[in-house]
Amino acid sequence: MDLLEMGRLAKAAAAKMNCMDTGTKNRGLLATAAALVAHGEELIEANKIDVERAKEAGMSPSLVDRLQLTTARIEGMAEGLRQVAALEDPVGEVLSMWNRPNGLTIGQKRVPLGVIGIIYESRPNVTADAFGLCFKAGNAVILKGGSDAITSNQAIVKVIRDALEAEQIDADCIQLVTDTSRETAAKMMKLNGYIDVLIPRGGAGLIRAVVENATVPVIETGTGNCHVYVDESADFDMALDIIENAKTQRTGVCNACESVVVHSSIAAAFIKEMAVRLSAKNVEMRGDERAVQAEASMKPATEEDWGTEYLDLILSVKTVDSIEEAIAHINRYNTGHSEAIVTKDYHNAQKFLNEIDAAAVYVNASTRFTDGFEFGFGAEIGISTQKLHARGPMGLKELTSTKYIIYGDGQIRG
Amino acid sequence: MDLLEMGRLAKAAAAKMNCMDTGTKNRGLLATAAALVAHGEELIEANKIDVERAKEAGMSPSLVDRLQLTTARIEGMAEGLRQVAALEDPVGEVLSMWNRPNGLTIGQKRVPLGVIGIIYESRPNVTADAFGLCFKAGNAVILKGGSDAITSNQAIVKVIRDALEAEQIDADCIQLVTDTSRETAAKMMKLNGYIDVLIPRGGAGLIRAVVENATVPVIETGTGNCHVYVDESADFDMALDIIENAKTQRTGVCNACESVVVHSSIAAAFIKEMAVRLSAKNVEMRGDERAVQAEASMKPATEEDWGTEYLDLILSVKTVDSIEEAIAHINRYNTGHSEAIVTKDYHNAQKFLNEIDAAAVYVNASTRFTDGFEFGFGAEIGISTQKLHARGPMGLKELTSTKYIIYGDGQIRG
Repeated sequence: MDLLEMGRLAKAAAAKMNCMDTGTKNRGLLATAAALVAHGEELIEANKIDVERAKEAGMSPSLVDRLQLTTARIEGMAEGLRQVAALEDPVGEVLSMWNRPNGLTIGQKRVPLGVIGIIYESRPNVTADAFGLCFKAGNAVILKGGSDAITSNQAIVKVIRDALEAEQIDADCIQLVTDTSRETAAKMMKLNGYIDVLIPRGGAGLIRAVVENATVPVIETGTGNCHVYVDESADFDMALDIIENAKTQRTGVCNACESVVVHSSIAAAFIKEMAVRLSAKNVEMRGDERAVQAEASMKPATEEDWGTEYLDLILSVKTVDSIEEAIAHINRYNTGHSEAIVTKDYHNAQKFLNEIDAAAVYVNASTRFTDGFEFGFGAEIGISTQKLHARGPMGLKELTSTKYIIYGDGQIRG
Repeated sequence: MDLLEMGRLAKAAAAKMNCMDTGTKNRGLLATAAALVAHGEELIEANKIDVERAKEAGMSPSLVDRLQLTTARIEGMAEGLRQVAALEDPVGEVLSMWNRPNGLTIGQKRVPLGVIGIIYESRPNVTADAFGLCFKAGNAVILKGGSDAITSNQAIVKVIRDALEAEQIDADCIQLVTDTSRETAAKMMKLNGYIDVLIPRGGAGLIRAVVENATVPVIETGTGNCHVYVDESADFDMALDIIENAKTQRTGVCNACESVVVHSSIAAAFIKEMAVRLSAKNVEMRGDERAVQAEASMKPATEEDWGTEYLDLILSVKTVDSIEEAIAHINRYNTGHSEAIVTKDYHNAQKFLNEIDAAAVYVNASTRFTDGFEFGFGAEIGISTQKLHARGPMGLKELTSTKYIIYGDGQIRG
């Protein structure tokens, strides 16, 4: 189907969803969850085609694993939809309402965004997850997954559409772009008038391509060059636990720690202990001159290291002479994602919280908590690293807009 | 100065402003207001150069008028800055704060956006207005005015910078792009990493150019194809007052009415009365077949009329057989700005408020109220017609972002 026609159908479906009651939306989500489980074997069969093709093309085992659907993963998708059904509906909330001296009553009401475009890479479960969140917030969604997962995505979308139709819900609220060419992706990024916001989910290359080419509004997500700053007064054990967790609990994620910044007055002692702790986890460390002096096994870091999101068992180590220098270094090299200080000092904790420019700033906790579920939102469509509209983990509320509703009695402007 | 260097300076100034206390910001605004008045003659001299050049180039008298600075207009700029100083500082407000089962305390705090880019056209007073709002919300601003007003803008910015420096405030928080070429404008639209949001203020052409070319996040403002729907049960006098006000009180503005939609059961009688009222104000009407039947002096409307923002004493008139048809027509042709219904019917009033997709939806009031001052915000940087970040009149709060601040006690993720 032509992309423009998809846009038209999605927009028409979004207009119907605009005022859809919560009960209907939840019924749709639960029916969809049940249908995914019921059609599990078909989905696995379709997925096998993608998996075989990927293996033949020599895809790495870890990527093949991401692509694969299993009964457990299908149950996971269904459970995700059930959980979204259980979340509070954000639409319709009146955020504030006030009277003007001329008698007008003005309210600001939460409404759906309209049509959301999602461009993502290989994991097919994103198809169901993204649909569920967009749908609960009253939006239509146009999905464009990676070419690797196209057969799986088509099968998942067909099951969802059939389940919605059986519930008398307009199935056009979910559209899948089946042409996975770059030209079509480029057109989708310029579908102004049909797509209200585009959210890319994937690696840095995909996100950069969307930011550079889209003319529809974009929410930039994902890249995280996250730091842990170990202050002069830090409890060493706490700092070591936090760094080990933030660096090694999962390495390929955007909220993992990529760089440790250490106050020079404790650097020699702390870095030695850190080296023991992290070498046991096979972490390679790259440090500045003083860091290397403290731990001779460390490689020297280059300028490039400070700006690198390794997504791997590698950590850069920077020494600083003051919290001011730490803040300046972090604000220069971070990507606006998650930053932490470990300290016992009240003033420094507050200073770090105030002056670090990032979506999430932590005192004495791991950067790994930047996540919609960990924040208690019950869901997450991504983590925004831009400052417009949404910053940090995005849940259902971030998939809405507002409108002003004004009650008058014949008022005209003088 | 090179644009990249401007970006660097603005970003450095924004980092300082990030935590600037309200008192310092207000002192800066009041000092700036006083300086503009004190240097009024210099500003008028500089402005004369622009005005002379514009006249020689054959600029229309109404545009020359927009360009002109007078003592009264300079006082107006100063008064605007004083009013902004009196507004509540939006920065630092903690919107919500909660505890998680693991003991983390998470708060969402309002922070400045960072560096705001404003691209605007000929009116030089926008220079002071935009600076004042961005500054109070803790942002640095990079301004690019029209080439017509360049000498005036340079003079205004010099006065503002000198006044800030005298108050020991980093004057780099206001930057003026003096190269008014299209190439420089295009570069400014792609200054990712330095500009956090770009707000175009001006005509449809400027806004389209920014939306199509910018890679930094944009807030789309301004175009308004606004409708007044006269329902079956409308009070004729109220409807006539509202239409006359919305169409003729000011014609060149985005919240003026461009089209009236009338229920067919009252069309014949109402349109006759409307023709009498509006012909006295020299409004040209263009209607569909039934509208022309009701009032033979009316020209027939073409398809193009329904989508046209005239910004002039012209009005299109559409007849419909139901409120559903009215809503569908408006949602098809509107630009998401301001829409009004005139009705006595409770159900139809609520239906219109719920189903119309626009920034501001009115019952029984003129669309002309869509304005930051009329809404009680005390200021306005523009009217957003997009759904991301801000929708409708934008005041100080819309010039901020948020960040999450997280207080821990050694928590790591399991």
